[in-house]
Amino acid sequence: MVGGGQLARMTAAAAVGLGATFLVLAESPTESAALVARNVTIGSHLSLPDISSFAADCDVITFDHEHVPGAVLAALESAGVLVRPGSAALRYTQDKLAMRERLSALGVPCPRFAPVSSVADVERFAGGSWPVVLKAVSGGYDGKGVWVCESAGEAEEVIAHGVALLAEEFVPFRRELAALVARSPSRQGAAYPVVQSVQVDGVCREVIAPAPGLHPDVAVEAEAMALRIAAELGVTGLLAVELFETRAGTLLVNELAMRPHNSGHWTIEGARTSQFEQHLRAVLDLPLGSCAPTAPPGAFTVMANLLGGTDPDVFDRYIHVMAADPAVKVHFYGKEVRVGRKIGHVTITGGLGDDVDALRDRARRAASYLRWGTEDGD
Amino acid sequence: MVGGGQLARMTAAAAVGLGATFLVLAESPTESAALVARNVTIGSHLSLPDISSFAADCDVITFDHEHVPGAVLAALESAGVLVRPGSAALRYTQDKLAMRERLSALGVPCPRFAPVSSVADVERFAGGSWPVVLKAVSGGYDGKGVWVCESAGEAEEVIAHGVALLAEEFVPFRRELAALVARSPSRQGAAYPVVQSVQVDGVCREVIAPAPGLHPDVAVEAEAMALRIAAELGVTGLLAVELFETRAGTLLVNELAMRPHNSGHWTIEGARTSQFEQHLRAVLDLPLGSCAPTAPPGAFTVMANLLGGTDPDVFDRYIHVMAADPAVKVHFYGKEVRVGRKIGHVTITGGLGDDVDALRDRARRAASYLRWGTEDGD
Repeated sequence: MVGGGQLARMTAAAAVGLGATFLVLAESPTESAALVARNVTIGSHLSLPDISSFAADCDVITFDHEHVPGAVLAALESAGVLVRPGSAALRYTQDKLAMRERLSALGVPCPRFAPVSSVADVERFAGGSWPVVLKAVSGGYDGKGVWVCESAGEAEEVIAHGVALLAEEFVPFRRELAALVARSPSRQGAAYPVVQSVQVDGVCREVIAPAPGLHPDVAVEAEAMALRIAAELGVTGLLAVELFETRAGTLLVNELAMRPHNSGHWTIEGARTSQFEQHLRAVLDLPLGSCAPTAPPGAFTVMANLLGGTDPDVFDRYIHVMAADPAVKVHFYGKEVRVGRKIGHVTITGGLGDDVDALRDRARRAASYLRWGTEDGD
Repeated sequence: MVGGGQLARMTAAAAVGLGATFLVLAESPTESAALVARNVTIGSHLSLPDISSFAADCDVITFDHEHVPGAVLAALESAGVLVRPGSAALRYTQDKLAMRERLSALGVPCPRFAPVSSVADVERFAGGSWPVVLKAVSGGYDGKGVWVCESAGEAEEVIAHGVALLAEEFVPFRRELAALVARSPSRQGAAYPVVQSVQVDGVCREVIAPAPGLHPDVAVEAEAMALRIAAELGVTGLLAVELFETRAGTLLVNELAMRPHNSGHWTIEGARTSQFEQHLRAVLDLPLGSCAPTAPPGAFTVMANLLGGTDPDVFDRYIHVMAADPAVKVHFYGKEVRVGRKIGHVTITGGLGDDVDALRDRARRAASYLRWGTEDGD
C-alpha cells in the first residue's frame, strides 16, 4: 500500500488474519501505518523511483490516498507493475471535472456543473441564483478545495487562488449518504449497506449504518449505482460514492473515492467483512467477503470521528471513556494531536431495540470527551 | 509480550486500535507474531538477559505462553520490571500440583488428585478403578504431558519417562466448558460468556459461544468461580479456566491459563471486546471492555481450529472457502503447514434464528477444506 496514513494502518491490521504479507510505502517512520506495520519502506508517493523500488517487492500495489500523480501511475503500469485500482480508474478521483463529465455521460445523476476560470464564468453559471459551489478540479480532500460562494465577490477570492476550478450547483440536501462497494478483477461485486454521513465544515464527523429510515428502493438504487460506476470506471478494490439525498428523495453523486473510506470505518465492528479486508481481497483478486451487518435487522452501528483538541495527551481522557462506556470501541491512529486533525474514531454497535439516537449520543459523548475532556463539546 | 506465537500475533493486531505500542520478544523473525508486529526483538524466553534487555523498552511485560522459568520471572520482578501476570500467579500454570493444591484449599471443585512417583503410587490412587489420568506436573500443553492409562502396565510406561507426575481421576464428563475472565491490577473483573469446547486428542478443535443449553445457574457459577480464582491467585490479565461439566451437571476445574486462550479466539468477531484487547487493557491497568457477545441473545458464534494437512500451500484452497462461504472469517497465523499443527482458525458468527449445528457444520467444512481440500475431512 502506497501511503502510510490511518487507512494503511487499519489495512495492516486486516492483513494479519488474512495471512497476506503487507508492505507500506510511508513518508516517515512516524506515520500512522509505519508505527504498526512490519514491512515499512520510507519514500515519496510522488517519486517514480521510490514507488518502483517499493513495488519490486510486491505482487500488487494499492493506495491509501489518491495523490500519486497520474503520470507516475501510468509509468508503473507500463513497467508491468500490477496497479489496483489502475490509473484509468484513479483518474476520476484526481480530476473532478473528468469525473463529472464521465458520470454525466453514463447518465449518473450529478449536481449541475461547469468548468470555470473567471468570475464571469461563475456568474454565468449562477444565473443569479446563489450560492454556487466552487471546487478545485484536483487535490482537495476533507472539505479543502471546496468553497461555497454566496456572491460574485466571494467567487472572485476563490478564482484568485489560481487553481483549476469547477462550479457546481449548491444542493440543499436532506442529508448525505454514502454507498460503499467492492469490485475484483474477476468482476465480482459486493455492496455494503448504504450509510448516512454527517459532515461539519467538509469533515466527516459521524456515520450511521445503515442510513436510518432510508426507503429500501432508494437504498437499492444507491447500491446499484455504485456497483455500476465501479464497473463502468473499471475500479478494482473499494469504491465509495458520496451522495446527496435531496429534499425530493432523489440521489445525486457528490464525490468518489477508490480506497477504504471514512464512511466505511464502521465495518470493522459493524460488518462481517471490514472494508480494509475487503479492499485487500479485491486487489488480490480473492473472492469478496460478506458485507452483511453484524447488528441484527433494525439495529445500527454508529461511528464518530475523533478530532484533535488542544491537549496533546489523549490517553489521560481515554481511560475515563473506557470506564464510562465499556462497549465503545476507540481506534487510535497513532497521530500527534493537532486541533481539528482526525486522530482516531469511535464505534458503537447496537443491539436489538437500541435507539439510534441513543447510540449516536454515546458515540458523540465519547469522541467529545476524548477531544475536550467534556462530554458536551463537539 | 514475551513469546512470538499466534497469541502475540493476534494481540499485535488488537494493539493497533488501542494505540498501545506493542513489542514482541520472539525466538526468530519468522515466528507468527514477528511476521506482523512492528517492534520485534529476537531472543529467548528462557534467558534472563534477553528478557531483561527487552523489558527495558517496555512499561509492562506479559506473555504469549507459560514457559518463562519461575526463577527468571522472580529475578525480573526483583529488578523492578512490571511483570503481568506476576510470578506468584503464573506459578499455578507452571506447576499443576501446586495448582490443584491451591484450588482445593480454596474449595474449588477439582478432580481427585495425588502426586505419584511409582507404579505402586498410581495403583494405590486407582484403587482398582481405571482409567487413571497421569499428567506431567509441568511443561505440558495441547494434550502433550497428559496420559489416560487403562492399566498399571500403561502407567509404568509413563512413569518410565522420568518426569514429575500427578495422578487424577478420569472424569467421564458430559462436555468441556471454558470460563474466560479478565482482572486488572485495579481489581476490576470482567467475565465472557461461558463456552463449550470440543477437544480431539487433547487439542481444541471447536468452540461454541455461548455453550448451548447451559443452565443459567451453572453459567453464573462458572463465571463466578473463574473470577474468584483470578482474585485469589492474584491474576492480572486473562484467566482461562477449562472445566468439565460432569454427567451430574456439576463443574470441575481441568486446567488454568493466564493469557489469551484458544477457547477465546471467538471473541475477535463474537464479543464487543476481543480477548486480545482485553488482555492488553488488563495488563496496562486500563478499564476493561465489555464482554457482551455481538450475536443477539439466542444466537451463537462458532470457532473451529485449522490444523495443518499434508499440502503446504493452503492458499490454493483458501480462495474456494472464501467463495463458498463469504461470511466465514479465516485467521491465518503465518505458520508453515505441518500435519496437525495449529495454523489458523475459522470463525462464524450467527444471527437470530441461525441453528447452532448449521453454524458448526459451516465452520467444520471450512476448516476441513482448508486442511484437506475436501469438506468431509476432519
